[in-house]
Amino acid sequence: MNNFFKQFPRSRKIYVSGKIFPDIKVGMREVKLDDPICNVLPIYDTSGPYGDEEKFVDVHKGIERIREAWIEDRKDTEKVRTEVVHAKKGKNVSQMYYAKRGVITREMEYIAIRENQRMDELFKGKGSPITAEFVRKEVADGHAIIPGNINHPECEPMIIGRNFLTKINSNIGNSAISSSIEEEVEKMVWSVRWGADTVMDLSTGKDIHETREWILRNSPVPIGTVPIYQALEKVGGIAENLTWEVFRDTLIEQAEQGVDYFTIHAGLLLRMIPLALRRTTGIVSRGGSIIARWCMVHNRENFLYTHFADICDILAEYDVGISLGDGLRPGSIADANDAAQFAELDTLGELTEIAWKKEVQAIIEGPGHVPMHKILENMERQVEKCHAAPFYTLGPLTTDIAPGYDHITSAIGAAMIGWYGTAMLCYVTPKEHLGLPDKNDVREGVVTYKLAAHAADLAKGHFAAHFRDDALSRARFDFRWNDQFALALDPERAMEFHDETLPGNGAKESHFCSMCGPKFCSMRISRDIREFVEKGKLDV
Amino acid sequence: MNNFFKQFPRSRKIYVSGKIFPDIKVGMREVKLDDPICNVLPIYDTSGPYGDEEKFVDVHKGIERIREAWIEDRKDTEKVRTEVVHAKKGKNVSQMYYAKRGVITREMEYIAIRENQRMDELFKGKGSPITAEFVRKEVADGHAIIPGNINHPECEPMIIGRNFLTKINSNIGNSAISSSIEEEVEKMVWSVRWGADTVMDLSTGKDIHETREWILRNSPVPIGTVPIYQALEKVGGIAENLTWEVFRDTLIEQAEQGVDYFTIHAGLLLRMIPLALRRTTGIVSRGGSIIARWCMVHNRENFLYTHFADICDILAEYDVGISLGDGLRPGSIADANDAAQFAELDTLGELTEIAWKKEVQAIIEGPGHVPMHKILENMERQVEKCHAAPFYTLGPLTTDIAPGYDHITSAIGAAMIGWYGTAMLCYVTPKEHLGLPDKNDVREGVVTYKLAAHAADLAKGHFAAHFRDDALSRARFDFRWNDQFALALDPERAMEFHDETLPGNGAKESHFCSMCGPKFCSMRISRDIREFVEKGKLDV
Repeated sequence: MNNFFKQFPRSRKIYVSGKIFPDIKVGMREVKLDDPICNVLPIYDTSGPYGDEEKFVDVHKGIERIREAWIEDRKDTEKVRTEVVHAKKGKNVSQMYYAKRGVITREMEYIAIRENQRMDELFKGKGSPITAEFVRKEVADGHAIIPGNINHPECEPMIIGRNFLTKINSNIGNSAISSSIEEEVEKMVWSVRWGADTVMDLSTGKDIHETREWILRNSPVPIGTVPIYQALEKVGGIAENLTWEVFRDTLIEQAEQGVDYFTIHAGLLLRMIPLALRRTTGIVSRGGSIIARWCMVHNRENFLYTHFADICDILAEYDVGISLGDGLRPGSIADANDAAQFAELDTLGELTEIAWKKEVQAIIEGPGHVPMHKILENMERQVEKCHAAPFYTLGPLTTDIAPGYDHITSAIGAAMIGWYGTAMLCYVTPKEHLGLPDKNDVREGVVTYKLAAHAADLAKGHFAAHFRDDALSRARFDFRWNDQFALALDPERAMEFHDETLPGNGAKESHFCSMCGPKFCSMRISRDIREFVEKGKLDV
Repeated sequence: MNNFFKQFPRSRKIYVSGKIFPDIKVGMREVKLDDPICNVLPIYDTSGPYGDEEKFVDVHKGIERIREAWIEDRKDTEKVRTEVVHAKKGKNVSQMYYAKRGVITREMEYIAIRENQRMDELFKGKGSPITAEFVRKEVADGHAIIPGNINHPECEPMIIGRNFLTKINSNIGNSAISSSIEEEVEKMVWSVRWGADTVMDLSTGKDIHETREWILRNSPVPIGTVPIYQALEKVGGIAENLTWEVFRDTLIEQAEQGVDYFTIHAGLLLRMIPLALRRTTGIVSRGGSIIARWCMVHNRENFLYTHFADICDILAEYDVGISLGDGLRPGSIADANDAAQFAELDTLGELTEIAWKKEVQAIIEGPGHVPMHKILENMERQVEKCHAAPFYTLGPLTTDIAPGYDHITSAIGAAMIGWYGTAMLCYVTPKEHLGLPDKNDVREGVVTYKLAAHAADLAKGHFAAHFRDDALSRARFDFRWNDQFALALDPERAMEFHDETLPGNGAKESHFCSMCGPKFCSMRISRDIREFVEKGKLDV
C-alpha cells in the first residue's frame, strides 16, 4: 500500500472540519498544481486511511472507528455483546428516521462537505446547492440514502441519490472455484484506492463469515451483501431447502457484523416466473434464480415478499439499507424492457412504500442488458413506480457481442443512465460472463466506472464536477504534463503510456508528445498564434 | 497473418454473388454454430483477402484489384501513366454522379448485399429495406457516400450513411518521433482484421509518399488522408509558406495514388480564429491549427475556402470523397458547442452545397470533446446546417479526466452520437493525448469502436444488427462456450479470459464458469427450472 503516492503523485490527504460539528473531519485528496488559476485541487477520495501517508493500517486490528463516538452520542443504541450494538428497544436508528424528524446528523454534514470538495470556497461566486440541510431533506424524502450500519463505524459517510455525485460499486467475493480471504480484503482496499464508493462482498464459497469480517473491519466504504448466498450455503446449496428462519438468522448475523446494505430479491413473485422462463436468457440474477427455484418447487409465494415487513424491522435496528434486487433483470438485448422485468419493477415500488413506512432506507436495483434506445424508459419507469427512490443499476450493457470488453459495453449504458438520474452504477469488469475478475480487472472496472460516473455528473450538472476537467484541460494546453497526470483518474497509467515513447524528465516539459511530434502539435501552434496576436511576433 | 483463424475460430470466408451483377462477389466471414435456430451466421467482414484461408497476400505485389474491370467497364476513364487512371475529359466518375442519373453501379449492389449479411435470406419474413436501389437513392441525395478512388481498385465497396451500419475509422501513420513503413502497413492490416471500415493514414514524418503507396496497394478498405500534412512537409514545416499550388499538387499526387477521401479544413475562416483563441484549449485540430497560423500570418482568408471549387473539380476526376474537416472542434469539455465550433459548422454546410453541385461525395467531420448532454445538439445542427450529409465524428470524449482510458470516455459519446445518426466514428485509442498508439492500442481502439458502432446499430434499428446479439445470447444460455467465443468481436480475448481460471476443453462444455461456480450459476438454475416446468422433475 505504500506505493499509493506513486500511483497518485503530487497528492496529500487533507481533512476539512465541519461547521455544525467541528469534530468531524472529512478526508479529501489534495492535488498540488502549477496552475495560475488554482494551485490546489481537492478530489473526492474513497481511499480512507489507505490514502493517508501519515496513517499506518494494521489489517489485523482494523481501521479507525470514526463514527463510534457519533453513534454513542445519539444515545439510542446499546451493546448486546462485545463490539455489537443495536437500537434500544422500540428505537429506529436509521438516517431516514432522524432526517424525517428534522435532525441533521454528523453524517449529513460530512456528506455535504464531501460532495462539494471545497469548490464552493476555491471558486468564489459559485454557491453550492448541496448543504447539510439539503442532504437531510433528500434522505427524509427517500430520494437519497446514507448507508452506514451502526456496527460498521469504520465507514466514512457517503450518500447515494440522483442529486449528488454518481456513485459506483465494485463487486468482490470468492466463488467455489477461486480466491482466498486475503485476496478479497486486498481487492476491497484496491477498489477503494481507485475510487469505489461502495463494495459488495458477493462471496459464495468457503469462509463467508470470516471473509466478510475482515473486509468490514478494514473498509472505509459501505459494504453490501446478498444474504441469500450465505443462507443457501447454510442449507447445503439446495434452494428448495431455504426457509424464512434460516434467512432471518443470516440477516441478523450480517447486520450485527456491520453490513451496510442488503440486496434482497423480494419483488420476484410466483406469477412472474413463467414470463421469465420464455425469455432468450431466462433468469440471470443469481439471487433471482435461487428464489425462482424455491417458488416453483414449493409452488408458494416468495418468502422474502411475504416477510418483507419483518425484514424491515430487523434492518431498522441497525440502519442497514435495503437494495431491492431485480431478480428478473434482462440478461440479453433480446430480453430488455420485457414484461417480466417491468412486472417485478411494479412490485419493487410497492415494497419501497413499505420500507419507507418502516423508515428503512431503500434503493432499487436495475438492469442488466439494455440497448441504448430502451435505457431512458427504465429510468422513467423506475422514478414513477418507485417514487424516485435512488436507482442502482448494473451497467446496463448496450450489446451482447463483446465478451472481454463488457466493462466498455456497460460503461456506455452506465454513463447514459447516470445522466438520466441513476444514483449508483454497479461496475462490470472485462471478465464479465467469462470468469472471476482478478486485481487488474478490478482496477480496469473501477476506473472505467469512475469515468462513466463522472461523465454523468458533468451531463447532469453536478456543482463540483467540471472543475477537474477544466483544470486538467488547462494543464494539457499549457504542457504541464505532471499536472495533467496528477489530475487523471489513473495517473500511473497515464504516465506509463506517455513514457513508452518519450521517457525521461525532459519530455515532461516538452511542448509536444509522440502522437504528433513538435511540428504538428496543434496545441503548440495554437499557443504560438495566441502569442502572435498578443505580441505581434512569431516564435517558431 | 496465418493466425487469423486462431483469432477468429469456427470461421471461413464465403462470397455471395450479385443478382443484378453476377460477377460481383461479396466477401463475408461465416461462423459455424451448434445453434438449433441457425447453424451459420455470416458476419460483416472488413479483412479482405487477409481473412481468406485460401488466399495468399504478397504485400510487395499488393492485393487483388477487384474493381479494376468494373471501372474499365464504365468506359469513362483513361490511363494517364502506367497504373494511373483519371476521368476522360469533361467526365465525372463519382458514384454520386451515376446515382443522380439513376445508374445502379456494381459498387451499389455489392454494398446492399454486404449490409444485409444474408440475414434477409436466413431469417425469413424479415424483409430488408436495404436494396441496391435504396443505396443508389441515398447516394444521389447526398445522405451517404461510397468512398472509392478509381486508382484504388483494391478497395471493397462500402458505404457511409446514417441509414446503414455505423462505420468506424482507425488512424495510423508515423510521426517525426516514431514508427516505420512496415509498421504502418502492418497496422493497416491489423486494423481491418479487427474491423476498421476505413483507415486514415495520418503520417507526418519521413517517407509519406512511399508509406501511403504500400498501404494503398494492400488495403481492402478505403484510405483517407489529410493532404495538408504532406503539403506542410513540402514547405519545410513552415505553415505560412504553404501555397495553393503546393496544396493542389499534393491533392493530385495523392488522388493519382488512390486515396479514397481527403480531410480538408476549408470551413475554418479568418474571422473565426479570435473566437477559438479565447478558449480553454484553443485549436486542437492539427490541420486547423496549421490553417489558422497561415491565415493569421498573412491576414488572408483560408486558401482552402477560396479554392474550394477548384478542389472539387480535382476530386471529381478520381471520385475522391471530401471529408470537411472541423478545424475548430472543441478539445475540452469547457469548449464544447461554442461559438467557434458552430460558426465553422455553418460554413461546412455552405461547402457541402458546392461539393454536391460538383457531384463530389461529401461527409462532415465533428467533435471532439463534448459532455453527454450537449451531444444531441451537435447531430441536430449538423443535419440542419449540412443538409443531412453523413456525419463523421471523433469520439466525442465525454470527460477530460481519464487520459489512458480515452478509448472509453470517447466510446460513450461515439455510441450515443452513432445512435443519433452519425454515419462513421473515428476511433480513439488508449494512448490519445499521451503518445502514438502501438499495435495493441490499435486493436483495443478498433474493438472498442466496433462495439460502440454495434450498440448504435441496435439502438437505431439497423435491420441486420440484432441477429448476432441474439445468437451469442442463445449460445451463452445454452453453455455453448465455443459458439459464444466465435461470435464475439474479439474471440481470442474472450477465450483467454475464460481460460485464465478454467482452462482445458472440459470447461468449454461446463454448465458454469468461475465467476459464480456451479451451484450459483443463474443460467444453470434457470434451465433447471424450465425443465422442471416441462417435465415435472428436478435434475439437481
